[in-house]
Amino acid sequence: MTKVVIAYHSGYGHTLTQAQAVLEGAKSVPGVEARLVSVAEITDADWADLDAADAIVFGAPTYMGSVSAPFKTFMDASSKPWFTQNWKDKVAAGFTTSASQSGDKLGSLIQLMVFANQHGMIWTSLGLMPGNNSSTGSVDDLNRLGSFSGAMAQANADQGGDAMRDSDLKTAAHLGQRVATLAAKLRD
Amino acid sequence: MTKVVIAYHSGYGHTLTQAQAVLEGAKSVPGVEARLVSVAEITDADWADLDAADAIVFGAPTYMGSVSAPFKTFMDASSKPWFTQNWKDKVAAGFTTSASQSGDKLGSLIQLMVFANQHGMIWTSLGLMPGNNSSTGSVDDLNRLGSFSGAMAQANADQGGDAMRDSDLKTAAHLGQRVATLAAKLRD
Amino acid sequence: MTKVVIAYHSGYGHTLTQAQAVLEGAKSVPGVEARLVSVAEITDADWADLDAADAIVFGAPTYMGSVSAPFKTFMDASSKPWFTQNWKDKVAAGFTTSASQSGDKLGSLIQLMVFANQHGMIWTSLGLMPGNNSSTGSVDDLNRLGSFSGAMAQANADQGGDAMRDSDLKTAAHLGQRVATLAAKLRD
Amino acid sequence: MTKVVIAYHSGYGHTLTQAQAVLEGAKSVPGVEARLVSVAEITDADWADLDAADAIVFGAPTYMGSVSAPFKTFMDASSKPWFTQNWKDKVAAGFTTSASQSGDKLGSLIQLMVFANQHGMIWTSLGLMPGNNSSTGSVDDLNRLGSFSGAMAQANADQGGDAMRDSDLKTAAHLGQRVATLAAKLRD
Repeated sequence: MTKVVIAYHSGYGHTLTQAQAVLEGAKSVPGVEARLVSVAEITDADWADLDAADAIVFGAPTYMGSVSAPFKTFMDASSKPWFTQNWKDKVAAGFTTSASQSGDKLGSLIQLMVFANQHGMIWTSLGLMPGNNSSTGSVDDLNRLGSFSGAMAQANADQGGDAMRDSDLKTAAHLGQRVATLAAKLRD
Repeated sequence: MTKVVIAYHSGYGHTLTQAQAVLEGAKSVPGVEARLVSVAEITDADWADLDAADAIVFGAPTYMGSVSAPFKTFMDASSKPWFTQNWKDKVAAGFTTSASQSGDKLGSLIQLMVFANQHGMIWTSLGLMPGNNSSTGSVDDLNRLGSFSGAMAQANADQGGDAMRDSDLKTAAHLGQRVATLAAKLRD
Repeated sequence: MTKVVIAYHSGYGHTLTQAQAVLEGAKSVPGVEARLVSVAEITDADWADLDAADAIVFGAPTYMGSVSAPFKTFMDASSKPWFTQNWKDKVAAGFTTSASQSGDKLGSLIQLMVFANQHGMIWTSLGLMPGNNSSTGSVDDLNRLGSFSGAMAQANADQGGDAMRDSDLKTAAHLGQRVATLAAKLRD
Repeated sequence: MTKVVIAYHSGYGHTLTQAQAVLEGAKSVPGVEARLVSVAEITDADWADLDAADAIVFGAPTYMGSVSAPFKTFMDASSKPWFTQNWKDKVAAGFTTSASQSGDKLGSLIQLMVFANQHGMIWTSLGLMPGNNSSTGSVDDLNRLGSFSGAMAQANADQGGDAMRDSDLKTAAHLGQRVATLAAKLRD
């Protein structure tokens, strides 16, 4: 089986909802098993799963222009597998959520890419054309925010993860499917 | 008089419309004179005006994830005033347009900031709280895209500059006013 | 008096050494008082000093491609003064250290700029030409790493803060002096 | 045969020297054919080769904080294969040169990554530990600049491509070999 681990932090539930969509997308690929790891309560068994994974997908909310502090704590702790190059050549991808439509989410995705590159990983783009960018487009379009480096979701500051847009979750699921497909192909 | 120059490139008219909004915002500040410079047809007199300016605002469409090639040509040509440090300590700011809601516009603003920093300039943030980020928000809110590093505008791919949202143009005008105010204060 | 606060995190002493150089540079400007705030042990009195400051300089080591987790914890906690816009229009600048010569330090400076922009601050570039970039250059040159968006320092992984290069510390002191000079001018 | 195309712009010969090292590295992989495309004089046959490639490596000097204008002209012209998604799922990587040791080269690599992501490509990190970052390190170490997102080279402003450091060229060759290996594996 190809193993995909989605390592995420969620402050208020929005990023968890997005992570679950990535998970469903990954699981939809034949021969792939996938699971979530909540980095705020990561265990030794989780670290072992990350070492054993074919692909790791990183997800965090964008707070003050970059990934949340609990996720950064996880990133810094990953200097241990970095020294031993345990994650080298694994497939990577990223997703992020914020309340603003654009809102510096690209900053978080760039941060995650630069991080994955330090680990010697292979970064998977979103692989979708942009939606919601013409007079006939709508917020229900796939990739309605026009992201390419990973999956973005926008969630209203006064609503929970259950109110997130289906288009953003389908976009996240697309990324999960894409990452899993690439990981399966490279493992083959 | 405090002098503000808005150096822009516009491929299809959207960024020109945004530049005109920045211009109006700058002109609204007492004691400030402002003008546009189209970098695709820049003259020696324009370069002299840039040297004499208290503030330079940079604006370009986001094409393939960064500022348009004609604008980059202008940036590279500015290595001449860089060698002589002619733009050092001037006030700077930036704006960009793309068809996507988010669409890598932050990448262009980061590129403009890093560029202005090489020139030794002082970068002006947008200075607005985000709009359109709650259940009561709308696309008519000021800063509806949630940008902080400069002014962003989204323009539908199948419509011209005349169809741009008033909220984006008011956001651009706010940036123009803010840059001009800071430049006037520093000149004082 | 113009007040400058240098908010820093240091993991092994290198960034503290760099922060002290920034402090000396800031203090060298007439009419300026400056102090360090260690964000890992920040107090209510420190937050009040940040609110009262004319300029805040941000400094952290680059770990795994972006600012250290303890510094990010401080950034996220600053969402409180952000909601009330307490830091709006203050002068900002940044510095960072890593063991590698280049080593993703620009990623940390970009992260700090985007963060300062969300707060509505004014970003101060380093304002130096690059050193150590020709056949007659050396590691003893001011700005020997060729940074523009803030001050960079390189510190060997197997040596302490006391072994840092004088050229990097002079570069940091230059940034402190430059930030303090701008803050004093804007306060005037 | 697995096809690798190295699309580059070189202003003064340094990036051409680096591109040739990437080329040698790619050619060293069994079953791989590789060639250079000079984007400043790109032909229809070159565009067809890019469409037919398994991997495209992008290389340009860093001018004023981002890739050179001639390279950006090529990037903008690639909106044609983007509309038809011709480069989707190809392997990508990047390299850049500047006179400064750090000198905003990460900004260029980020720009190239964001660009490759828009095309729906798969980004290859450098896959090396950093060199020249301890008291026993030297400028002759592989990855002596400490880059991870692609290959960096530093070339003195007053010397030609023939004076470039062997360590930087070996680092570039490593990237070429790594990209070709991944492309061959994915084609398999």
